Amino acid sequence: MSGNIGAEQAALAAEITERIRRFVPSTDDYQKLLTEAMEYSVFNGGKRIRPMLLLLTFRALGGSGAEETPLVDPFLAAIEMIHCYSLVHDDLPAMDNDNYRRGKLTTHAKYGHAMGILAGDGLLNAAFEAALSAEEPDCSGRRTVKALRILAAKAGAYGMVGGQAVDVEMTGKPMSEGELAFVYRLKTGALLEAAMQVGAVLAGASDEVVAKVGEIASRVGMAFQIQDDILDIASTTEELGKPVGSDEKNHKTTYVTIHGMRASREAEERLSTEALAILAGLPCGAAGEPLARLISSLVGRTV
Amino acid sequence: MSGNIGAEQAALAAEITERIRRFVPSTDDYQKLLTEAMEYSVFNGGKRIRPMLLLLTFRALGGSGAEETPLVDPFLAAIEMIHCYSLVHDDLPAMDNDNYRRGKLTTHAKYGHAMGILAGDGLLNAAFEAALSAEEPDCSGRRTVKALRILAAKAGAYGMVGGQAVDVEMTGKPMSEGELAFVYRLKTGALLEAAMQVGAVLAGASDEVVAKVGEIASRVGMAFQIQDDILDIASTTEELGKPVGSDEKNHKTTYVTIHGMRASREAEERLSTEALAILAGLPCGAAGEPLARLISSLVGRTV
Repeated sequence: MSGNIGAEQAALAAEITERIRRFVPSTDDYQKLLTEAMEYSVFNGGKRIRPMLLLLTFRALGGSGAEETPLVDPFLAAIEMIHCYSLVHDDLPAMDNDNYRRGKLTTHAKYGHAMGILAGDGLLNAAFEAALSAEEPDCSGRRTVKALRILAAKAGAYGMVGGQAVDVEMTGKPMSEGELAFVYRLKTGALLEAAMQVGAVLAGASDEVVAKVGEIASRVGMAFQIQDDILDIASTTEELGKPVGSDEKNHKTTYVTIHGMRASREAEERLSTEALAILAGLPCGAAGEPLARLISSLVGRTV
Repeated sequence: MSGNIGAEQAALAAEITERIRRFVPSTDDYQKLLTEAMEYSVFNGGKRIRPMLLLLTFRALGGSGAEETPLVDPFLAAIEMIHCYSLVHDDLPAMDNDNYRRGKLTTHAKYGHAMGILAGDGLLNAAFEAALSAEEPDCSGRRTVKALRILAAKAGAYGMVGGQAVDVEMTGKPMSEGELAFVYRLKTGALLEAAMQVGAVLAGASDEVVAKVGEIASRVGMAFQIQDDILDIASTTEELGKPVGSDEKNHKTTYVTIHGMRASREAEERLSTEALAILAGLPCGAAGEPLARLISSLVGRTV
């Protein structure tokens, strides 16, 4: 995901990076190399898009500032660690076999294949550990469990891992429209949905609002990925910050190869318009503006 | 772990295998191959030692029979899926590179390396999903969250994954007494502790009793592993059901290579006696007897 993040979002990402630090395991005990590999995998210049979506959704829906540290921060760390573990495992030789990410060695390239596997495992586990440390004012654990159920469902075999599996299976083969939509919806979309829905649940939103938030997120996720496909063809390497034309080189099925450039641009436009319209229909007031700006920047709009 | 399980325990293991089935993802959707690989990894003839310890601890401490289905079964599935995912990843080429386990192809050998990684990821995630589906009579989630915190802590970088990482790092190198104790305590011991402590928490045991249960479990885990080291030398391949002498062949540091056979036998005896004595001191009455028999069978005693 290569979204154009503005200065406002970059500042928030830097703040989030510090807020999640205390949840990432770190030790000088015998397993020091493992926790070093885990820290390396998280503190790698990531844009923190998922925790930003989570936090700004929480704020948009009237979440209490006093609850951010005890209740929300654990989930910011959880969703980012899930995202990071998925990248670490995705980069492994048996998967995409990437030795570099954002110009730095990938975790397995630096710490060895075995440690890459274990660092990923440790991060997924630490994600749940972090979220389970969340504290609610009434000590009930009600919102925590509800948010955790969403997170686990969207991250697993019926969510992100399921999308990842189909993506791996279809590598080098042409994908049908249904398969591509499945991969887009689950591999990247599911975790974006989790981010926003967890933010809504933690803010105490009703089930109806949580469902609406899911509709926003699924459109943002799809628009985002279509944009990625468009940029891979239409952009220059300099603009994109990574090699362009890689999809074509790898004979990869994308939204553009199936639907063509014009329909892709229209779909991206329609989905992002719909996402912002649904958000505008929620009772957020001015508190929703930072979220609207983040979504706009993710799908390449200026608000 | 090769424990001698009697007929009573084998029957319970078969029952548990059926009780956990509904928590293991299964689908005919696009990610069918992933969930097939996950099911293959769980329904593989495993002895279900961890869920048995969990269930019998729950029963020993007066857990309600009516709560077994809604509250305990999700955790039986969770702890077994965590155990299974750790085996799947442990067998990967970058780790132990084992193509067979219990005479059957390992998951990656059957489904490919990438699917081995993803099936393991999916199982770890599904473990938390299962446990998060637990239902308490008062809907509070209090025992669920407490039990989940123990499970996550014991399974992660400060628990099982941490032990695994040090074991991997030290492969082919001599280990110090401290390193060996660390690996034994975390790689296998931590999840046995989680099993019994989760059972205690779900039964509503006091913190004091949960701590005592942890002391029992850590002794059982250590005695079990020392027994494994002894059997690798003293047993015949026929008795053990796997090649003997593999530790020596691999120049592996074990309890026996550090402490010698006599001291190892004494340590195993002392630890298992202590474990059973602590159990006898808990207010279990006759409800504790199946647990005592399971522990005895695990450490090779007859009660």
